[in-house]
Order: sequence, then structure tokens, then C-alpha cells
Amino acid sequence: MTTEERRAPAEPQIIGRAGSYSKGVARRQEILDRAIDVFRERGADGTSLRRIATAIGVSHAALLHYFDSREQLLVAVYEHAESKRDTAKMYGDSISALDVLVKAAMINIGVPGMVELYTTLLASSLAVDASPSNTFFTARFARIRGELTERLITEQEDGRIRDDVDPADIAALLISASDGLQIQWLLEPSVELEGTLETFAVLLAPPAP
Amino acid sequence: MTTEERRAPAEPQIIGRAGSYSKGVARRQEILDRAIDVFRERGADGTSLRRIATAIGVSHAALLHYFDSREQLLVAVYEHAESKRDTAKMYGDSISALDVLVKAAMINIGVPGMVELYTTLLASSLAVDASPSNTFFTARFARIRGELTERLITEQEDGRIRDDVDPADIAALLISASDGLQIQWLLEPSVELEGTLETFAVLLAPPAP
Repeated sequence: MTTEERRAPAEPQIIGRAGSYSKGVARRQEILDRAIDVFRERGADGTSLRRIATAIGVSHAALLHYFDSREQLLVAVYEHAESKRDTAKMYGDSISALDVLVKAAMINIGVPGMVELYTTLLASSLAVDASPSNTFFTARFARIRGELTERLITEQEDGRIRDDVDPADIAALLISASDGLQIQWLLEPSVELEGTLETFAVLLAPPAP
Repeated sequence: MTTEERRAPAEPQIIGRAGSYSKGVARRQEILDRAIDVFRERGADGTSLRRIATAIGVSHAALLHYFDSREQLLVAVYEHAESKRDTAKMYGDSISALDVLVKAAMINIGVPGMVELYTTLLASSLAVDASPSNTFFTARFARIRGELTERLITEQEDGRIRDDVDPADIAALLISASDGLQIQWLLEPSVELEGTLETFAVLLAPPAP
């Protein structure tokens, strides 16, 4: 990410308004932008909220004003980073479910630390019900499964993919495969992420007429 | 796991011998058995090595005799738990790659805390090269990919699955899908783990003659 992109507010229509609410939103975004850089450089593991505050150059108290806990900050950082690269919005309705995921995965692995942050939060989400990460990931998986299922139904109706499999099952499989392959690729670069994910194109192809 | 299973040494041929080495191995296994229970009850997140020692009833020094770090202990706990349920060994050569994974996944989600421990370690493995979790997971993924690829090649040769896809790619996809679906299922039990994984049976079926 360039310096310019880092400075660009994610929600200019809100930040553009005058008043303390919009200033607070802008400040929060600025903190998140800086926090992303910190996590990229140092990783998400074992860094206290106090040390994060020092690293991004705000007081511990200021950080606590915006985020109740380290976990809430980490979730917000991930959400903020992800909102900047919403593949579905970038490519519109005509792109296939598989291509949405492949493009998202390729952007994701290009940002050092993102897969690690994602996996750290995922582990937290399994530890405590209704924690920030638990709430975030439960909603995130449901939303992405829903979006991909819609795309897959359309693809089945159009005859672009086979229709003898449940689109919701395929959506869950595609998400799992993409998440897991990013990890396997990071550990072993010979596991070719894009090519392996694209195998789904063969598996999902409609039977030859 | 029953009390009897917990007490059963994993490597009786070594532990059966007299001498301090075998006693040390037995003691290590005993610590791991108890540690599995602790993680099941409390989760892997944020527990110090000192607190783990207290919980399993050994001194901090004794624990450090067997494990250099908290991460090394966590890796050993996971490895120890996994060695007790090696699906491939349990079911022999005739079982399909998919069935190996489905059976392993169903056992895994039956042990509270295992998916969380796995995911916590996976996140650690991405943070530092050559750390205990990094070394463990790099080798583990390579081994399981290799084992499943061998099975898939046999299945292709026997005409049990389609042969227009690369077996190594399918192995990586199956592992990712199984890992990821266990997490999605834990967060949202309506994501039916077994049924969703079994979709691969349809996707991999050879074309109708």
C-alpha cells in the first residue's frame, strides 16, 4: 500500500462533515491505518495494547477511547484492511464466485501479516462466545457464504457450473479452501495458491453435453 | 477420552524398558495427557507456561525440563493428541482420501478445544520462521499432502475418482476444506461439516461412461 492510500479515508462522506463525531471517525480510521502498518511489521502475536499505542504514536488512553480491548482493535484493523479490498464490489455481479475468492486471496497474500492476523483472530473467535472476534467472524462467514451462494445459484441457472451440488455447500467449501490454501502457501510456497484454487473450475464445470 | 485412555502410554515399547530415559519419556507423555485436559477446559489462548504447570500439578521447573517454551508444549500437546487418532492407520489402505479426512474431522470436532488449539498454533506458525509451530506445521502439511496424494493417485488409477485433476492439488484442497469447515461449523453449527465435506465425493466422481 502506498502512503497516499494509507492517508485516504475509507468513508470520505462521513469524514468530510464538520463536528466532533466526524473528527472521531477520522481519527479512528487514522489509528487503524497506522495499526495495519504496525501489525505488518511486527505481527499480531503477543503485542499488548500499550505497545501498539506506542508504536502508532498515540497514548494508551487515546487508544482505549476508540477500542475497548486489544482484540477489538485487532478485529477493527482486519475489518478496515478488508474493506479497502472488497473484491465483489471491485468486480461487479458478472464475476464468478470462484473468481471473487481467487482475486481476494491473491490480494490478501500480497499484504504481509494479513493471513497471520486473520488466523490469530480466528483462533480467538473459537475461544469465547460473543467476544469481538467471535461476533465478527460468525457474521463475516455468514455474509460471505450468502454472497457466494447467490452468485453460485446464478451460475447454476446460467449453466456455467454443474447443478447437482448444493450452492451453499460449495460456498462453504470455497471459503474454507481459500482460507486454508493461503496458510499452506505461506508455509510452503510450492503449494501454488491460484492454480490450486482454480482446480475448482474443473470440479464445478457442467458435464459435457 | 476415558481415564484409561489418558493413562495409556502412547509408545509402550519404549516406556516398558527400565532406565531414566524411558521414565523421562513416560513422564513427558503423562504431562501431555494432563495438558490436553487443561487446554480442553481452559483453551489455549493466553495461558502462561507457569499457569499450565500449576493446573497440571507439576512445578514450573519440571515443565521447563521437558519443554523449552509454551509454544513447544502446545505443539507437543497437539501432536500427542493427534497421534492417538491417526485415521489413516485406523482404517488402512483401502479407505479413500476423502474418507480419511472426513473421519479425522469428525473425531477432531468431538474433542473440545482441539480446533482452537490447532488454529492458535497455525497462527503462531505464520509469525516466525523455524519456530516450533512453524516447523511442525510445515512438516505436517507436507506429510498429509503426500499421504493423501498417494491415495488419490491410486483412486485415479482404479477409476474411482476423475483423472482430469492434479492429485496434489486435490490433496491441498481437501486439507484446506476440512480445516476451514471445522472452524465454520464451530462458529455456525448449521454449516453441516460431514455433509459439506462429502460434496467432494460428487465433485470428484469420474464422468458417467
